[in-house]
Amino acid sequence: MNSFGLVFKVSLFGESHGNSIGVVIDGCPPGIPIGPDDFISDLSRRQSGSKGTTNRRETDKPEILSGICNDVTTGSPITLITRNIDKISSDYDAFKSVPRPGHADYVAGIKYSGFADLRGSGHFSGRITWGLVAAGVIAKLIVRPAEISAKLISAGGSTEIDQALEKAMAERDTIGGIVECRIVHPQKALGEPFFYSMESAISHIVFSIPAIKGIEFGSGFSAASMKGSVHNDPFIDSTGRTSTNYSGGINGGISNGNEILFRTAVKPTSSTGVVQRTFDFGQDQMTDMGIKGRHDTCIALRMPVIIEAASAIAMADLLLIDRGINGSRKF
Amino acid sequence: MNSFGLVFKVSLFGESHGNSIGVVIDGCPPGIPIGPDDFISDLSRRQSGSKGTTNRRETDKPEILSGICNDVTTGSPITLITRNIDKISSDYDAFKSVPRPGHADYVAGIKYSGFADLRGSGHFSGRITWGLVAAGVIAKLIVRPAEISAKLISAGGSTEIDQALEKAMAERDTIGGIVECRIVHPQKALGEPFFYSMESAISHIVFSIPAIKGIEFGSGFSAASMKGSVHNDPFIDSTGRTSTNYSGGINGGISNGNEILFRTAVKPTSSTGVVQRTFDFGQDQMTDMGIKGRHDTCIALRMPVIIEAASAIAMADLLLIDRGINGSRKF
Amino acid sequence: MNSFGLVFKVSLFGESHGNSIGVVIDGCPPGIPIGPDDFISDLSRRQSGSKGTTNRRETDKPEILSGICNDVTTGSPITLITRNIDKISSDYDAFKSVPRPGHADYVAGIKYSGFADLRGSGHFSGRITWGLVAAGVIAKLIVRPAEISAKLISAGGSTEIDQALEKAMAERDTIGGIVECRIVHPQKALGEPFFYSMESAISHIVFSIPAIKGIEFGSGFSAASMKGSVHNDPFIDSTGRTSTNYSGGINGGISNGNEILFRTAVKPTSSTGVVQRTFDFGQDQMTDMGIKGRHDTCIALRMPVIIEAASAIAMADLLLIDRGINGSRKF
Amino acid sequence: MNSFGLVFKVSLFGESHGNSIGVVIDGCPPGIPIGPDDFISDLSRRQSGSKGTTNRRETDKPEILSGICNDVTTGSPITLITRNIDKISSDYDAFKSVPRPGHADYVAGIKYSGFADLRGSGHFSGRITWGLVAAGVIAKLIVRPAEISAKLISAGGSTEIDQALEKAMAERDTIGGIVECRIVHPQKALGEPFFYSMESAISHIVFSIPAIKGIEFGSGFSAASMKGSVHNDPFIDSTGRTSTNYSGGINGGISNGNEILFRTAVKPTSSTGVVQRTFDFGQDQMTDMGIKGRHDTCIALRMPVIIEAASAIAMADLLLIDRGINGSRKF
Repeated sequence: MNSFGLVFKVSLFGESHGNSIGVVIDGCPPGIPIGPDDFISDLSRRQSGSKGTTNRRETDKPEILSGICNDVTTGSPITLITRNIDKISSDYDAFKSVPRPGHADYVAGIKYSGFADLRGSGHFSGRITWGLVAAGVIAKLIVRPAEISAKLISAGGSTEIDQALEKAMAERDTIGGIVECRIVHPQKALGEPFFYSMESAISHIVFSIPAIKGIEFGSGFSAASMKGSVHNDPFIDSTGRTSTNYSGGINGGISNGNEILFRTAVKPTSSTGVVQRTFDFGQDQMTDMGIKGRHDTCIALRMPVIIEAASAIAMADLLLIDRGINGSRKF
Repeated sequence: MNSFGLVFKVSLFGESHGNSIGVVIDGCPPGIPIGPDDFISDLSRRQSGSKGTTNRRETDKPEILSGICNDVTTGSPITLITRNIDKISSDYDAFKSVPRPGHADYVAGIKYSGFADLRGSGHFSGRITWGLVAAGVIAKLIVRPAEISAKLISAGGSTEIDQALEKAMAERDTIGGIVECRIVHPQKALGEPFFYSMESAISHIVFSIPAIKGIEFGSGFSAASMKGSVHNDPFIDSTGRTSTNYSGGINGGISNGNEILFRTAVKPTSSTGVVQRTFDFGQDQMTDMGIKGRHDTCIALRMPVIIEAASAIAMADLLLIDRGINGSRKF
Repeated sequence: MNSFGLVFKVSLFGESHGNSIGVVIDGCPPGIPIGPDDFISDLSRRQSGSKGTTNRRETDKPEILSGICNDVTTGSPITLITRNIDKISSDYDAFKSVPRPGHADYVAGIKYSGFADLRGSGHFSGRITWGLVAAGVIAKLIVRPAEISAKLISAGGSTEIDQALEKAMAERDTIGGIVECRIVHPQKALGEPFFYSMESAISHIVFSIPAIKGIEFGSGFSAASMKGSVHNDPFIDSTGRTSTNYSGGINGGISNGNEILFRTAVKPTSSTGVVQRTFDFGQDQMTDMGIKGRHDTCIALRMPVIIEAASAIAMADLLLIDRGINGSRKF
Repeated sequence: MNSFGLVFKVSLFGESHGNSIGVVIDGCPPGIPIGPDDFISDLSRRQSGSKGTTNRRETDKPEILSGICNDVTTGSPITLITRNIDKISSDYDAFKSVPRPGHADYVAGIKYSGFADLRGSGHFSGRITWGLVAAGVIAKLIVRPAEISAKLISAGGSTEIDQALEKAMAERDTIGGIVECRIVHPQKALGEPFFYSMESAISHIVFSIPAIKGIEFGSGFSAASMKGSVHNDPFIDSTGRTSTNYSGGINGGISNGNEILFRTAVKPTSSTGVVQRTFDFGQDQMTDMGIKGRHDTCIALRMPVIIEAASAIAMADLLLIDRGINGSRKF
């Protein structure tokens, strides 16, 4: 379904080559100062244009349809949209009978009985994350003083990201990457076990983002090789600070006030310039396929701000739920 | 919160040393044949007793409170409980002022303002997964012919699991592990993007399980090092079969009919026999702590059936949602 | 579905003649003092036994399975059950092919494909409201200082309730009634328009109660005959007090701090002693039916405490949601 | 909150004098033929313009932002908006310190801490029902062959509606009314007790509509005066037809296949031309207030199509849930 969150609820809509894409944010506290220009910084970070990203250009400043008046949130649902302008739909005509490997063409055809609008990958497009980033801008204000920052720490298996990009572009191929996210000064006691742990909330929304194939918190997969006597983070003072942070700031699904840390794996962009074998369901035989269109060499380049937004939304929801049940607390 | 699922909804309750633990399953189709004995096989798999697991013994056969009549589901909510019998609560008295590192003692104390029942780790105990496994038994029947099987593929960083266990026990320490889960013959077209993708649903419920710190689908973290021309799985016949399965059977958040594959990282049990440094919040100083009680050397040993149950529940929910929106389809 | 509430979430389970009936309450704040005896007063009010109610006897004191420890809520889900003991299931055997008029026998047979446990009306029984009343006891503590009281103001169309009951019993027939509910000292600003207005929340849960067929707030149906200049309640002081209360204390779906007032219509008990015509689906012909068993002459007699509980639950949920979004406020 | 529905989910947004109002519809089956012109008939019915309605004019044809492509639903969320054009905001400046009796001005001021956009009553405006009606157009297609029709059966207490309107207009006052809704050929077995009965679903959404103060199903409040032997509707043939319909086509919260029937009470429009007493919170004293602006004499005139839409949405959600849990069934 297209909503996330119990109290701070974010709903995304739109298809890549439809009229508009956008987001509705329900459950946002009133009185938060925010205007159209406040979205530009984060929206620009997710935008295409730099080396390794598609040439598609969109003027992504949001149009505010509701919920913000005189640059302050009103308490009623906030709706933000942006029009789809720079779209070239002819690129996508052939994919209904010859679905692109690694793309959603095949499953969308089945799930929506052929009615999905797959131009530009439709509702499966990475472009839909525009609304996620816009909602994240507001969520970040709600979770203050917590500060969320994500960055790409490797691409194509290398920490020499520029070189990896150049090599991939030269091969007309695509590469994946690893994005690391840190949340400093997080509120304590966020997370609602059993089923809405901090990790559950973050992973749920992060795996909504196209191309994410893995997530790990704290020491993550390497925890599987560690001993308990090492992995356990000792408390060292009365504020609950720990001397190590293998848990990623989360115990029992609840934030402990130390830095929250997680990493996500981003697969290589599915649309590669390299010719691939795939099946032609119309001709009932294998065929060669080359994908033209405009595509990212490394979609992971755009991920940090999207991951930040997703984290902020999950955290805002947990914050409002905790405040609802337990009242305000100060630590 | 303590429920998972939109249509097939599972709610867990109970504390480790309280009266009972249990589960309510709402939205279960009527007419599914199931009796108390059908739960025993999976519940035994999660039970303690084998090498590397705690000595705590519980007669875990469920008492059926509602929703099953004459060994058939009735369509009304199913409630299953088991009593807590073999509990030794005195072990846990000291942890309120000296929280155990790696445990939820500290965060629970803050979140629930000191009112949490932390005997045996209370609602944070791995024991709460009893209800998850019980619900999983029913969910597995709903998702047939899909078959879900998980296994421990390494412990303490080694694929020689027995040796790793013996070494850890000799050191009185604990170790983590990696659990791999495969779902064969899955229904196609399950998953509801944007926010309720197959990966979102599975990761959400899997990260509810205590001790899980990472998850990856298909090639997962290694996808970050791959090229698109390799990672994309080519379709090879009219049934949608692919020649490779780097995607783990999921494209665009939707199952494509190929095997679903994911791995999870399980951290070492927090309760280690090794003496640890931690903070005494009552005395406002560091202290040494040794944990007695009965504990698992490697909680990952019990995880496979829990991961299977979690996957089955997520899949059952996605199946009923898809059938609701799109009607029955045959592929 | 069998849950109500977004943050303060109540789930009911059980069938009339099954093992147990009960309730799970999730999202309850920790630290609320409550023990088993605190439930007795309200549970006794809903119990059968007085003139005009069935002879079925149940020892309805709750067994606490989870969430309350040392007579205080812990913050984890609260589960309360009571066993079904005094049940005579043979009474109900014939109703599968000859459904009782006014009962759920016919629709349950279709909806659950013949698998519903209809002994004692199963999950449709008024007995299921036991869990609602139990949850209401806790909800009433959460919404303090608001106080909720409901009473039966007419039965069988008469305000002479005793006489109406005696007449109906003499005729071996059943009668309905009107229950009025007042909430004094309500918090202001509860209700989440557009879709979770105070009236929406209360009516949603009230219409879950078997036998309720109408609800009206404030002047209700008579508002349809009034002029705006009369119906509008003028504010008369700086506390927001109004001189009249035709709105029932709710403007725009939000409580205004004045008394909340609503009335509900309770239909006559479906199980009447009078012989009725109905259809025999087995014989494919009309037939006469007399219902034996033990039944209430006027189910409305038991309704006040059930209506109070429903109102308290709705209000507790709205209170925690409002506090989550807007923080604590004092008025 | 601003969403209704579990699977077929409708979210409304917008303020009366903001940029736009609109609706997002999630969980809509793909393949439903619908274009912009298909909305006009119902949207015109709710529009102002006839005798007794405001002079405000809006070109209400929807702009389709997403989810419909080539006049067919795609399976991804449908977003429809309309711009707010004919607005005169200066009318509303004074109401912050002198809240209008019967309006949401006072409660909105408290709830949203003064940040609500109350121009034209903001998110509380009846104008927000535009999106509800638009969603209803689609929902009506989903619930076919069920047909829903509502009409105003009295106004100002009289069945001579024209006369009542003329009298009220002459007095510059406003009046309420009763709207009756009938659903013929409804699917059987819709409704999910305990908490999501057919009556719960319909009343929840109906009480979201501004100005609704009562609802009754079937014989409703008069059931309280009836005997069980009369109120019970006898089945008379193998299709489940009943000879009477006092239950309004719903037994045990589930549709029985007979006509669904309910009535709602609509209060008089709060904005009356008659001068009223109210409190000036700025001056801390009583004052006289005359409301200018453009307003409906009888908002109930516009209600039938809104009530139809609300019913259709509730029914579509119940239909998709039932189909999810129980599969398709034919009766």
